[in-house]
Amino acid sequence: MGRIQNARVLFNSVPESYPVPGETTVYDPSQTIDIEAEPLNGGFLLKTLVLSIDPYLRNRMQKPEEKPNLPPFQIGAPLEGIGIGVVLRSESAGVEPDFTVHQEYAVYPELVGGMQILQKLPELPLTVYVNAAGIPGLTAYAGWKEYSEAKPGEIAFVTSGAGAVGTIVIQLAKQAGMKVIASAGSEEKVKFMESIGADVAFNYKTNDTRAVLEKEGPIDVFWDNVGGDVVDAAIEFAAVGGRLLECGSISGYNAGHLGVKNFSIIGSKPLHVHGILVLPLLPKYLAEFCTTIPPKLASGEIKYAEDISRGLDKVGDRILAVQKGTSKAKAVVVVAEEA
Amino acid sequence: MGRIQNARVLFNSVPESYPVPGETTVYDPSQTIDIEAEPLNGGFLLKTLVLSIDPYLRNRMQKPEEKPNLPPFQIGAPLEGIGIGVVLRSESAGVEPDFTVHQEYAVYPELVGGMQILQKLPELPLTVYVNAAGIPGLTAYAGWKEYSEAKPGEIAFVTSGAGAVGTIVIQLAKQAGMKVIASAGSEEKVKFMESIGADVAFNYKTNDTRAVLEKEGPIDVFWDNVGGDVVDAAIEFAAVGGRLLECGSISGYNAGHLGVKNFSIIGSKPLHVHGILVLPLLPKYLAEFCTTIPPKLASGEIKYAEDISRGLDKVGDRILAVQKGTSKAKAVVVVAEEA
Repeated sequence: MGRIQNARVLFNSVPESYPVPGETTVYDPSQTIDIEAEPLNGGFLLKTLVLSIDPYLRNRMQKPEEKPNLPPFQIGAPLEGIGIGVVLRSESAGVEPDFTVHQEYAVYPELVGGMQILQKLPELPLTVYVNAAGIPGLTAYAGWKEYSEAKPGEIAFVTSGAGAVGTIVIQLAKQAGMKVIASAGSEEKVKFMESIGADVAFNYKTNDTRAVLEKEGPIDVFWDNVGGDVVDAAIEFAAVGGRLLECGSISGYNAGHLGVKNFSIIGSKPLHVHGILVLPLLPKYLAEFCTTIPPKLASGEIKYAEDISRGLDKVGDRILAVQKGTSKAKAVVVVAEEA
Repeated sequence: MGRIQNARVLFNSVPESYPVPGETTVYDPSQTIDIEAEPLNGGFLLKTLVLSIDPYLRNRMQKPEEKPNLPPFQIGAPLEGIGIGVVLRSESAGVEPDFTVHQEYAVYPELVGGMQILQKLPELPLTVYVNAAGIPGLTAYAGWKEYSEAKPGEIAFVTSGAGAVGTIVIQLAKQAGMKVIASAGSEEKVKFMESIGADVAFNYKTNDTRAVLEKEGPIDVFWDNVGGDVVDAAIEFAAVGGRLLECGSISGYNAGHLGVKNFSIIGSKPLHVHGILVLPLLPKYLAEFCTTIPPKLASGEIKYAEDISRGLDKVGDRILAVQKGTSKAKAVVVVAEEA
């Protein structure tokens, strides 16, 4: 077979604001690999199939002195993120990791960085395992179960309701017997949120969020993927004893930390705010999630959406689209069809 | 006996900033009462003994259109708050309510507004029942038990550590085996906080709070009675999984709502924030508190401090002192010695 292309997406510079393709990240097809002869040194050779393009990737594009909460990407090295690959050759164990670097082929010495063998339902496509059947779905499931204290008849408000996490949260809230308000940034996304059960879906770009919440609230559970002013609005129209589940602040990833103006209402109303990170919740919810959610995705009882691009060279564009909110649904890059 | 003075403290005007004695509140000694002949109409006549001067009173000095979280005081009517009185005459039941209006004598038709008969330990003075053995102590106890998730070896940070609530929180944190950092606004208060067990007590007016927290943290449990910039500092130096218990925002009571600049860190670290109001926690903790804390106050195992003034005419001054932080400890006005 000889040497073939082994393209990479390199981190090139820390962005001032949005990550610019070709500047922040560079697609580099210059390297080659002989996949039959590449030395493994006791490890294994992985071929990347699917990459998950997530909002948090922007958090890793920082200078070390900015004290990011995740390890910053190294300038000149490939990006890293959540993905799925297939093991081509191995001197250790046959594995399909869910974590990979943004290049077509790579040798790993062992299972590293949370890699694990994927237990896949044959009815589901691989891409759903970086979406509703993967980390975003698990984040929604574990965070909701642990912190929502959802009760039938209560009212939920979900931002980025057409995103990978929000899509699952809307459906969990409906299953819990709640009225669900959901926001997103396009009419297409509003229609999708309605199709998965949102009672009140609105485009935050063309509607006044406060007017919607005043009419449809008060909010018992607020699941937020956005941050910023919408948090002030949710605090203002929260019910006494309301729970705010903060799962992301994408509106601030490109503009520094986001504040709220009326934090003191949390003490006086009172409210309860929970930061949602999936890692500490894994021991409690991983097994339950795996037996509960993927079968419902396979049967169609729980719905999901994806916005698939093909080719590693699309990564930079898709990262920017996710940050700008122009991805139509959960963004996935298919690097290669299954080997 | 005939008619005697029945002075009142009236709410006179909504303050722009701090509540000015003689302007915001007016001491009015013009009314009289015949305590032997005042018609009861089936109710009872209460003589006020002790009034609690609390930070939250400022929250009731607002215009109805500002949508305060507590019912606003009526212009021209006496202030209301937490207090203790003795029943002089009754056509209903003998009661010592813990809730009274700010006047020397008043007739009530029945037990209203949370009034209850006080179960008092003979060793404790009456004043401690609006302090460590009353609502402030109960707030600290119930909030701490419900939300701190305190673990031995963890680090707590308490603001207003010499106040009625903070005093109890420091001691509960020490009992839980934690290292306790505590702040207040005078050297006298720093010495008091050290005397009740704080490991690191500091004057926030003469020390850099961030420098203290960077050196002594990270903070696992933050109990806050102050609000504002210290919350930003606590979020910055919070441990992963840290709990922020928001019990008051006195720094903002005279300046509108208080924000935080780095709210988005709550989602990414992650942190958990709980507003602390005692009312919803009463069913779970009231009985436990009553059997646990007052005996320890009587034995000296738990310590408390009070700053007592005598005479209803001192109320306006003391309300201002509490807002400005110049009260030396929990502020109490003794209106009359026990009848």
